[in-house]
Amino acid sequence: MCKTKACFSGVTQQSGAANHIFKMTVVALVQGATRGIGLQFCKHLLEKQSTIAVVATCRDPEHAHRLHNLAEVYPGRISVVKIDVTKEKDIKDAAEKVKDKFGSLDLLINCAAILHPSRKGETSLRDLTSEGLVSTLATNTIGPLMMAKYFSPLLMKGRGKFGVQLTDNSKQHCAILVNMSAKVGSIGDNGLGGWYSYRMSKAALNMATKNLSIEMGRGRAKVVCVSLHPGTVETDLSMPYHQNVPKEKLFSAAYSVQCLMNVIDGLSLHKTGKFLAWDGSELTW
Amino acid sequence: MCKTKACFSGVTQQSGAANHIFKMTVVALVQGATRGIGLQFCKHLLEKQSTIAVVATCRDPEHAHRLHNLAEVYPGRISVVKIDVTKEKDIKDAAEKVKDKFGSLDLLINCAAILHPSRKGETSLRDLTSEGLVSTLATNTIGPLMMAKYFSPLLMKGRGKFGVQLTDNSKQHCAILVNMSAKVGSIGDNGLGGWYSYRMSKAALNMATKNLSIEMGRGRAKVVCVSLHPGTVETDLSMPYHQNVPKEKLFSAAYSVQCLMNVIDGLSLHKTGKFLAWDGSELTW
Repeated sequence: MCKTKACFSGVTQQSGAANHIFKMTVVALVQGATRGIGLQFCKHLLEKQSTIAVVATCRDPEHAHRLHNLAEVYPGRISVVKIDVTKEKDIKDAAEKVKDKFGSLDLLINCAAILHPSRKGETSLRDLTSEGLVSTLATNTIGPLMMAKYFSPLLMKGRGKFGVQLTDNSKQHCAILVNMSAKVGSIGDNGLGGWYSYRMSKAALNMATKNLSIEMGRGRAKVVCVSLHPGTVETDLSMPYHQNVPKEKLFSAAYSVQCLMNVIDGLSLHKTGKFLAWDGSELTW
Repeated sequence: MCKTKACFSGVTQQSGAANHIFKMTVVALVQGATRGIGLQFCKHLLEKQSTIAVVATCRDPEHAHRLHNLAEVYPGRISVVKIDVTKEKDIKDAAEKVKDKFGSLDLLINCAAILHPSRKGETSLRDLTSEGLVSTLATNTIGPLMMAKYFSPLLMKGRGKFGVQLTDNSKQHCAILVNMSAKVGSIGDNGLGGWYSYRMSKAALNMATKNLSIEMGRGRAKVVCVSLHPGTVETDLSMPYHQNVPKEKLFSAAYSVQCLMNVIDGLSLHKTGKFLAWDGSELTW
């Protein structure tokens, strides 16, 4: 049983007035918010602007202590919701909850990812297992896409409060969807090989982003969809490999997210369907 | 119980001399050979040159009548082996059998693919299911990669009898690995969207090809690895969509395979890691 007010289960007794206020808020959802870049996105968004409400999703809300700490610092502004991204029902239920509470979404950031269930990327064919591939694709690729499926109706009701709006009315966007990808997911840039599961999961995710940008760019309510590369960030995922990264190229989560938010703040329909790095440069597929 | 001599189970009583002859043969393995492009590759290879032995793999050898017909026309030259590409054990067992019989492989072509378990590509997010994605990735992406895992030791013992050899000895290849991909698996070329599962599975397969080209291009025994696009071919997979394809762009399997073999015949280490169309042109990732 969740005891914090930040959890949906703990805030169902909001007054109608409070609900009304929620419905006027800019809403950002961060999927995979327990740690690393996801957690940092939550912090950044809460600090950035007091009108932003954050929905932070994670596999185990009860033990997401750092999110609950944030909920104490920013009371009423963060909702912690359970999503195990490999469970379609979790995603569907969460979308229902967000719909009931906010009615729309301005920004969705898919962050959750694993390098490999063993926490070590494959260095050669010898290391490959079907199970490792299946599991990595489930979290890194299928999960984010199923998020898009269930949250797209809410994104299409967004009010375009992130990014920059083009002057042409017909080219304004109502929301932004970000898939956190990685440069090692670029096929064209791949010069080293290895990390089969992770690389393949991100290449497939990049295809999903491109497809989403097309489908969600067609109707009246347009959603900007991008894949972003965060740089090499000091997170649990990359930790075993930090020793191989020159210091100046190893970013803190705070620095990476600051850069990524600058990129997001500059997004418009002109950039939908692209694969962009932390510095805004475009990466090859 | 398999009754044709073409099945491994039926040819275990070969004489030592016959085994010796087999070991001197040029060996090509076609995975997914029951129908369509895979079946046509078998035909083409058998017709092409009498020294080529073909290993044709399929999920259900007992009912692969067209392969058994080929075995009658080309006695002793085609071995039908069971591989359900979603079953790692099938792949492992088949690799053992091919090792025992031939000891090496000069060409491996991964053909098996599904558009979607429903046989209809998704036209929008609404059609997406986790099960459809998982199943499509299992057949189209993970299967071919597991084939590479278990057959790479045999490919590395190949004698480079396909493609063209470069004059520089250090850049000669011992075998060729072909992953049948598709232009709709090109992220950069994707202008229409839809077909999520299929597109994503092929993008991830293309990453696998790139990775394989790097790993198998490093050692002394180098294997050329490419993704090929066959054009739009009259197969079961594409059948529901034929009406939308201009006649001159809808290839017969025979024409497509003839073009693809021309591309394969021109492969060298210069082209490893590339994504090539039926006419030899390079496709963007």
